[in-house]
Amino acid sequence: MVDVNQIISPTLLLDEQRCRKNIANMAERASQHGVQLAPHFKTHQSAQVGAWFQEYGVKAITVTSVKMASYFAQHGWEDITIAFPVNIREIEAINHLASRVRLTVFVNSVESAQFLTSRMSADLYFYVEIDTGYHRSGVWHESITQIQQILDRANSNYLHFVGFYTHAGHTYGARSVDEVAAIHQDTVAKLKQLKSAFFSDFPRLKLSLGDTPACSLATDFSEIDIIRPGNFVFYDATQHLIGSNSIGEIAICLAVPVVALHPQRNEVITHCGWTYLGKDSLPDEEKGEWYGLVVELSSTGWSAPIEEAYVHKLSQEHGVIHLPDEQFSKLEVGDLLGILPVHSCATVVMMGEAVTLNGQVIEMM
Amino acid sequence: MVDVNQIISPTLLLDEQRCRKNIANMAERASQHGVQLAPHFKTHQSAQVGAWFQEYGVKAITVTSVKMASYFAQHGWEDITIAFPVNIREIEAINHLASRVRLTVFVNSVESAQFLTSRMSADLYFYVEIDTGYHRSGVWHESITQIQQILDRANSNYLHFVGFYTHAGHTYGARSVDEVAAIHQDTVAKLKQLKSAFFSDFPRLKLSLGDTPACSLATDFSEIDIIRPGNFVFYDATQHLIGSNSIGEIAICLAVPVVALHPQRNEVITHCGWTYLGKDSLPDEEKGEWYGLVVELSSTGWSAPIEEAYVHKLSQEHGVIHLPDEQFSKLEVGDLLGILPVHSCATVVMMGEAVTLNGQVIEMM
Repeated sequence: MVDVNQIISPTLLLDEQRCRKNIANMAERASQHGVQLAPHFKTHQSAQVGAWFQEYGVKAITVTSVKMASYFAQHGWEDITIAFPVNIREIEAINHLASRVRLTVFVNSVESAQFLTSRMSADLYFYVEIDTGYHRSGVWHESITQIQQILDRANSNYLHFVGFYTHAGHTYGARSVDEVAAIHQDTVAKLKQLKSAFFSDFPRLKLSLGDTPACSLATDFSEIDIIRPGNFVFYDATQHLIGSNSIGEIAICLAVPVVALHPQRNEVITHCGWTYLGKDSLPDEEKGEWYGLVVELSSTGWSAPIEEAYVHKLSQEHGVIHLPDEQFSKLEVGDLLGILPVHSCATVVMMGEAVTLNGQVIEMM
Repeated sequence: MVDVNQIISPTLLLDEQRCRKNIANMAERASQHGVQLAPHFKTHQSAQVGAWFQEYGVKAITVTSVKMASYFAQHGWEDITIAFPVNIREIEAINHLASRVRLTVFVNSVESAQFLTSRMSADLYFYVEIDTGYHRSGVWHESITQIQQILDRANSNYLHFVGFYTHAGHTYGARSVDEVAAIHQDTVAKLKQLKSAFFSDFPRLKLSLGDTPACSLATDFSEIDIIRPGNFVFYDATQHLIGSNSIGEIAICLAVPVVALHPQRNEVITHCGWTYLGKDSLPDEEKGEWYGLVVELSSTGWSAPIEEAYVHKLSQEHGVIHLPDEQFSKLEVGDLLGILPVHSCATVVMMGEAVTLNGQVIEMM
């Protein structure tokens, strides 16, 4: 077991059992609903965690960048989708990677389609990303002409149209299962309509989506072929607020040393700035913006969140935690606290490695 | 010269000339006001940029963590202050470092003083950090008894009291030179009062502060011995808004590839998420929160910010930029844009290296 007393500076703890349970649950959901699970690996960014997915039959994965795709290709993954509008300046790396693995990208513009047509020298698969209401990126779902133009311009034997992908990121603003379900229903209806418009030309066209709230909660995937959730592998306070997971399913926790106590305002200064935790916050009418839930650490993991406790302020190195009287009075300088992150993807990017409760170091790109 | 056409993915550009000018200006200010400059190296985190400071006579530096102190000690720095409440769990590393360099920390509690008294085996210098109104960390400036208790408990031949330090971080909320000056005046008055209370016991007691706004703008340092600004080395959009620097003094710029265009809302999708830029934002009544200024890149550096252009939204990899009609209509997928960060310290943490306009790679921890 990891000896929490040996922790001297901010350390990311990973509960492997919870994490494997999250993977098993999502694989089970995918299987029940007859969809393929091609999980997004941006949340863990780890070859070791990636390997746990193989035990559940996962063969295809999703990433955010050419760099991350290369990392997982080096670790034996052979079917990789970069869920990001293709960056044509990276054409050399894309050609190199496409010659080694089955590589899929998003082609969202005529310009990108034209560029890839003239420059690809290996098979490249592509989705057209569709905006179904999140308004971040992708072609608007009603822009049939624009989609047709992209498909017309992707005129090379190396380019293979897979289908339509959407990231319904507006489910992150939902605060109940019903809200998530309503957005999901709308998303699926739009994708389905789009499919019917292109089905005669592309009868094997696939539909794919990836937001963790819908993948965790929705009950109808009858029109969807592939789901690509990422965050569920660890979950976090945001997903818990949406309703995607229970608190007991959050699989990472940042262990942080207490460096000062301010009893006049029940504030604990910890070594836990945004350099370690990331800077994502959630709004609360009373607390204002808050940055994490607070737990107690033990040799077997961590407790449920301390009620009324939260990360109140972050600067580069300082994490200011608010604790209620009872817990505050027990705490001493040099103790440790645990933080359940608001956004686990961000904490992983900042920390770059984790330690399992068994003491195994997990590399994260 | 750096060939911007060779940039294929998010790349941090560093204008060495501007950076050296910022260093020269701050060294000149310190010299004019008769204070020592012990710059905070958390902004650049770079041995190479650190070396530029040596040309201006800088011998003592400031950092945020034991890890950063060790890095700069390895690169030849022999007088290092860790501007953070001492993390007593790191006692072994502190003893090791203190045996190699002149190491200074913050001791803000009786508990820390007592712990260090029993465990130090090498000379350790310390400030008591003082809260003069920012309310992040430090002992409240009126808590004379508490300060006296800390000094009484730091009862070891290895422990040497240096004086009082304050980070007047509330100057970051100021939006004019006058506002900064008013906070600075108040800060100095409080430190001066504290000094007079302890002067008879500690006649060599020093006063130190480090906020970049006051260090850049204030005109009275007559009571201050050592200044520790960090951000000024690169400056950023936040400091510009405060009035600390002109736009032409911002010395870093994140070059980012354009991956998609959304003409219906004048939005450009760039490969520039918070993974690269950091997540700091500034509020604006019309724009809402914004994350960076937008510039055009050329072989000699970057332009002034494009008026009415700003980074509008960030996710892990996507940076959504709003551009006015004229610039939007000129832009193509595959072009590059430049971003002047809201918070340069954060961008440096995320990127980990920069390239000078001469093409030299600069390592940043």
